[in-house]
Amino acid sequence: MHPSATLGEIAGRLGGELIGDPAAGIDAVGPLESATASTISFLANPLYEKQLASSRAGCVIVAPAFKEAATARGAAIVTPDPYLYFARLTQWWAARTRPLPLPGIHPSAQVDPAAEVGAHASIGAFAVVEAGASLGAGVTVGAHAFVGRDCRVGAGTRLAPRATLMFETVLGERCFVQSGAVIGADGFGFAPDAGRWEKIEQLGRVQIGDDVEIGANSCIDRGATGDTVIADGVKIDNLVQIGHNVKVGAHTAIAGCVGIAGSATIGAHCMVGGGVGINGHLSIADRVVITAATQVTRSIAKAGVYSGLFPFDDNASWEKNAATLRNLHALRERVRALEKKQT
Amino acid sequence: MHPSATLGEIAGRLGGELIGDPAAGIDAVGPLESATASTISFLANPLYEKQLASSRAGCVIVAPAFKEAATARGAAIVTPDPYLYFARLTQWWAARTRPLPLPGIHPSAQVDPAAEVGAHASIGAFAVVEAGASLGAGVTVGAHAFVGRDCRVGAGTRLAPRATLMFETVLGERCFVQSGAVIGADGFGFAPDAGRWEKIEQLGRVQIGDDVEIGANSCIDRGATGDTVIADGVKIDNLVQIGHNVKVGAHTAIAGCVGIAGSATIGAHCMVGGGVGINGHLSIADRVVITAATQVTRSIAKAGVYSGLFPFDDNASWEKNAATLRNLHALRERVRALEKKQT
Amino acid sequence: MHPSATLGEIAGRLGGELIGDPAAGIDAVGPLESATASTISFLANPLYEKQLASSRAGCVIVAPAFKEAATARGAAIVTPDPYLYFARLTQWWAARTRPLPLPGIHPSAQVDPAAEVGAHASIGAFAVVEAGASLGAGVTVGAHAFVGRDCRVGAGTRLAPRATLMFETVLGERCFVQSGAVIGADGFGFAPDAGRWEKIEQLGRVQIGDDVEIGANSCIDRGATGDTVIADGVKIDNLVQIGHNVKVGAHTAIAGCVGIAGSATIGAHCMVGGGVGINGHLSIADRVVITAATQVTRSIAKAGVYSGLFPFDDNASWEKNAATLRNLHALRERVRALEKKQT
Repeated sequence: MHPSATLGEIAGRLGGELIGDPAAGIDAVGPLESATASTISFLANPLYEKQLASSRAGCVIVAPAFKEAATARGAAIVTPDPYLYFARLTQWWAARTRPLPLPGIHPSAQVDPAAEVGAHASIGAFAVVEAGASLGAGVTVGAHAFVGRDCRVGAGTRLAPRATLMFETVLGERCFVQSGAVIGADGFGFAPDAGRWEKIEQLGRVQIGDDVEIGANSCIDRGATGDTVIADGVKIDNLVQIGHNVKVGAHTAIAGCVGIAGSATIGAHCMVGGGVGINGHLSIADRVVITAATQVTRSIAKAGVYSGLFPFDDNASWEKNAATLRNLHALRERVRALEKKQT
Repeated sequence: MHPSATLGEIAGRLGGELIGDPAAGIDAVGPLESATASTISFLANPLYEKQLASSRAGCVIVAPAFKEAATARGAAIVTPDPYLYFARLTQWWAARTRPLPLPGIHPSAQVDPAAEVGAHASIGAFAVVEAGASLGAGVTVGAHAFVGRDCRVGAGTRLAPRATLMFETVLGERCFVQSGAVIGADGFGFAPDAGRWEKIEQLGRVQIGDDVEIGANSCIDRGATGDTVIADGVKIDNLVQIGHNVKVGAHTAIAGCVGIAGSATIGAHCMVGGGVGINGHLSIADRVVITAATQVTRSIAKAGVYSGLFPFDDNASWEKNAATLRNLHALRERVRALEKKQT
Repeated sequence: MHPSATLGEIAGRLGGELIGDPAAGIDAVGPLESATASTISFLANPLYEKQLASSRAGCVIVAPAFKEAATARGAAIVTPDPYLYFARLTQWWAARTRPLPLPGIHPSAQVDPAAEVGAHASIGAFAVVEAGASLGAGVTVGAHAFVGRDCRVGAGTRLAPRATLMFETVLGERCFVQSGAVIGADGFGFAPDAGRWEKIEQLGRVQIGDDVEIGANSCIDRGATGDTVIADGVKIDNLVQIGHNVKVGAHTAIAGCVGIAGSATIGAHCMVGGGVGINGHLSIADRVVITAATQVTRSIAKAGVYSGLFPFDDNASWEKNAATLRNLHALRERVRALEKKQT
């Protein structure tokens, strides 16, 4: 269905040492195990080496260490970082097989006359762009997307259908906001007043750097006073909640279902696993890795890997251990008593 | 407010042994404890037996074992599986009390001329159906719903208002996608490149079988290469995240707030409790039950019930046990030392 | 950019003892540490007292105990509850700096002739209001918002862009529903039938009281039979899931990423921390505080603070403790054996 490419075109465009017939046709990029003779595949993780020999892939992208094994079975492209090569290949592949968004403003869209729309922007059906908003060159606004008043969206940024930017949100260049993401909703702020909650209007904004990706149905709240700030290159998966006044450092990656409470500061180059929670007002150093499902309850001052989850087990074993855990402190006291008697 | 039905009509339509006046009128389906003389209720769980005697329900659906107890207090319908009977009753009730979606295309909708729309389809206000999409007979597309290019939606499937199908998504027959669900957004894939992340374009699709329900604001990502696959009869609750290339087997039920990381394979007839997380690249057998809030960190090869959550307690007790837990390994060493001394 | 206010205006409007020049101009409300000479700030938490002396804020709102420290450095407003004063100040500030929604119905909106729209209501672009819906006076319906048939929305309630109320939902007065929230989707109910799931149509509704706030992309499901009920003054953060037939008592606050399973009953004045899960069919007393990431697996009959999370640690320490935890029950048996030998 997709137009096919030759190995020669691929290597010509993306580099690497091609070993094999440059005229061989490729019509899919895919994993080793389901590859056919017209699939280009890759081996990035040595754990999958045994899949290499049995794969029917027409060509495999490999590191120099696997050159021999790869060429023993067919064509190969040898490159120092096969995974990165694969990433670039997917980009090139998507660019040539996917239709470009139609330039211009769909007749059904509502773009306020007091909004600025850059050259080559594409605005989809039923999109709303309010007064004072500014869209840079080549911005794509999907169907049903909402760009509130006084938002600024940098050049080349794409808003998927149904992405929502509440008023005054600032987005950098080449960002990608997926469907249903809500940026700039009110943070969760209330002052107690004799048993009721008095709303703290959220007067700040959301500021997002360049090359940021935000997943489907994720939320980034506006600051209470001052801004919520997401630095350049941050990648955020789906269904992530980022509270008001959070700061996320450059190139940090945040997996799905993470919740970061208000005013937490996350360093640069961190990796936050799926389902992690981070309490409010904490500070996390650069290059911290937090494994899935950990709840971070105090600041982390040092790079490293941090974890905290209850190991799962069959239900009966878990139940016995959990019951003992409920009396763990008492068990420690019993050990202490035994130790005393022995001395 | 709703048109009432007689017990005779209900039993005539849905079967069961009716004991009582077939002309008695019913105007609500409801739980035993708040039932009135015109409510039909059910007893499925023997734990609620004591509610039976005191309920004012006009009729109670019961299993044969409760026939005597039920008829001692009024009308009853006796059937081998009261809960299933109740399910079918709700379907019948909803069908007769809820207005049908208007057939045809709402004048405000944007349906590309290059989309196929089956007979008796209903497309709501401001819906978007892009080129190459195909909607089967009797499909309902709610207001503000989005059906991207080349999507295929099987006969009888309903998209609630604001459901989103990104391009190339395949949905089977009789599915139900609730509001805000996003199917076919990009998976979370990036290759590291000298401290930055290089996007891996997600070239696969989402393929969903027949009779699948997907909850509000849930997300199912498209495959990186190859497809994300949800088999027939799968039921997914709200705010669930399903990563790229996940496979979910037939008739598996997934409760709210679950996160399933990329390339995990879940068997058929599984039950995944609320808030569960499943790490990527794992494999889970058929008929596995995972209780709420468990994080699954390795594959599960055998049917059974699996758990892993920290038992909650009053804060003071929890804190003492948690503090001991932090030194649990040292405690084990102390026990070992005591054991050595004793031998 | 925003019109500035004088300290005299602020104290005139909101009260408190102003110590300083009433003519001094203020153009921002902000935190102590980034304040400038035209910022009004506040000190609510004595932990931040040391920020007071070094802050460049033009005026600080303080409690009587800090009057001396505050006036030593510049202007101050003295009031018994500075945080509540700050909340009211943000409300006043927002009201004077933010444009009012345009009254009337946007020409692109679809409002059914059989819907009632109260005086001074504002209905945004592409909003849908179905037949039988009723909107009270001064209601705001944002762009792309959806109000299903027979919904009732009380006076002064605001629906942000892309908020969704499914049919028959009842919302009180002065509520705020943020973007992407879905109220009244089907609850997750299925009866097993020989390995398949039979849908239980959800015949109930969602009933929400006055002064309720519901966060972005949160979900509140309609009841199966009978209603899901959220009482007055409840505040719900983003990405929260509330199952069918849940009852939430007045003035309870629920932080982000919480999941409450079906038919749970939560008391009034509770505080539910981020990422908490609550099993179905439980009952939780008034004034219960549940700390972040706790899974509540049984009812709580008494006010108090409850917790249950695995303390996080560096990965190596966690792994050792987790491994021991998997054999905790055996460790207890070993301690018991030691105790026996000693007696």
